[in-house]
Amino acid sequence: MERVKRNERIGVIMQTLSRKPSQVVPLSYFCELFGVAKSSVSEDIDLAQATFERYGLGEISTVAGAAGGVFYRPKPKKEAVEDYLAGLCRRINEPSRILPGGLLYMMDFLFNPVDTQTMGEIIAAGYAHVEPGAVVTMETKGIPVAMMTARFLNVPLIICRRDNKITEGAVLTINYVSGSSDRTIRTMSLAKRLVSGVDKALIVDDFMRGGGTAKGMHELMAECGIEVVGTAVIIETEEPAQKLVTGCRALLKLKSVDEEHSAVHIIPAWNI
Amino acid sequence: MERVKRNERIGVIMQTLSRKPSQVVPLSYFCELFGVAKSSVSEDIDLAQATFERYGLGEISTVAGAAGGVFYRPKPKKEAVEDYLAGLCRRINEPSRILPGGLLYMMDFLFNPVDTQTMGEIIAAGYAHVEPGAVVTMETKGIPVAMMTARFLNVPLIICRRDNKITEGAVLTINYVSGSSDRTIRTMSLAKRLVSGVDKALIVDDFMRGGGTAKGMHELMAECGIEVVGTAVIIETEEPAQKLVTGCRALLKLKSVDEEHSAVHIIPAWNI
Repeated sequence: MERVKRNERIGVIMQTLSRKPSQVVPLSYFCELFGVAKSSVSEDIDLAQATFERYGLGEISTVAGAAGGVFYRPKPKKEAVEDYLAGLCRRINEPSRILPGGLLYMMDFLFNPVDTQTMGEIIAAGYAHVEPGAVVTMETKGIPVAMMTARFLNVPLIICRRDNKITEGAVLTINYVSGSSDRTIRTMSLAKRLVSGVDKALIVDDFMRGGGTAKGMHELMAECGIEVVGTAVIIETEEPAQKLVTGCRALLKLKSVDEEHSAVHIIPAWNI
Repeated sequence: MERVKRNERIGVIMQTLSRKPSQVVPLSYFCELFGVAKSSVSEDIDLAQATFERYGLGEISTVAGAAGGVFYRPKPKKEAVEDYLAGLCRRINEPSRILPGGLLYMMDFLFNPVDTQTMGEIIAAGYAHVEPGAVVTMETKGIPVAMMTARFLNVPLIICRRDNKITEGAVLTINYVSGSSDRTIRTMSLAKRLVSGVDKALIVDDFMRGGGTAKGMHELMAECGIEVVGTAVIIETEEPAQKLVTGCRALLKLKSVDEEHSAVHIIPAWNI
């Protein structure tokens, strides 16, 4: 009987923690759930932690003190990330993706749950140590990946909007210059309530060419007194090499799109 | 040694399946991972299934045949759903949420990973049996919950856009009449590539008053030859009782917002 019980406990602990990434669960929660002493739960947690590590499934951290407990975070292995990004490059390198103007069709993987979860996990793991208090994105295409990143970090999402017709209280609006060659003046807004209590933010977006949109989000965060602790995008273009924001990390780098010969040249760019 | 191994296996199986909801994992994957026979993995799966059930954490289903295996789906218990929705009503019933015009501030829970995950799980569990091939939403505020719903169903997300300046290939645009009293003519567009191969769709949105936006999405799906198998929203208003679409299910029903007395009357509405 004891043997079955420990099986169950390990399974429930691993599942419970991993479906609540970055959420602190007090040991007493498991003590009550299983009707066992804290010492048993501590042993279970050690076993769960060893198993997570052995199979590269993530890691358990301990928070001390009255509000303490344990929390789980995914910790994707270097080889797994490299395999995923190499596979994504192969999927992107298809002539049928090339759109007029040398743009690429990206919505299939940007809106796919398996991809967004994997990309969100990679980005979250790369920034968890700087403890962002929110993930910021610009509508629309980056929202799913940004949401998955926020899920793994267990922080709220802040969505910047293209128009200021937001009906949810006071709105902060800035103008910014698009990073593309046409240098259009654009507008970006957010509902002020969304940023209340946030001190550090991670910017996540789908695509960066010149970096104008990211720079706009940096400015909007500065207006709110929020420190930007990182900027991550799914794809950045190789040119222009000089972006309007510094320190941006990209999962993939787009070297060229050759419309005439229907060739896409894209490579993994994320360093773990 | 054997005892530790089974602990590990159950934990890894429960965690692996639950982080890939609705994704079929062949038993051979676990056989190779653990270096054990299929009969052992089958026993492990039975134990994992019994544990998921006992703790109300979800369920494992089996798919027969060459592409067969097992997959996990969350199956939130009735009491857990009722508790969550009652708590959400208490959080919404705050005078500070009331915005001019009797609207409510909702972005805190619409953009929060714990809430979006819980709501997505509830909605997905309510529609898994009709096997939607995609989740459809209208930008912007419903995207996070729609993405989480799509994650639990393991289907792609289709995002309808407010403008037709979509740079990703052929775009389908319709006009629709807003369900609110002003009856404005609006536009809704989607990139045609997104719907390729989709036969059945579940509509998920954040808010419904008259149902104009949902009706627009129904029309857009009809134009694409896609059957709508359900319409779910986070909050629907009690009035007008007659919506422009039928068969919609809401997590919560907003009975009234009394600006003068700063009172919000909202109740759980989801039947399991």
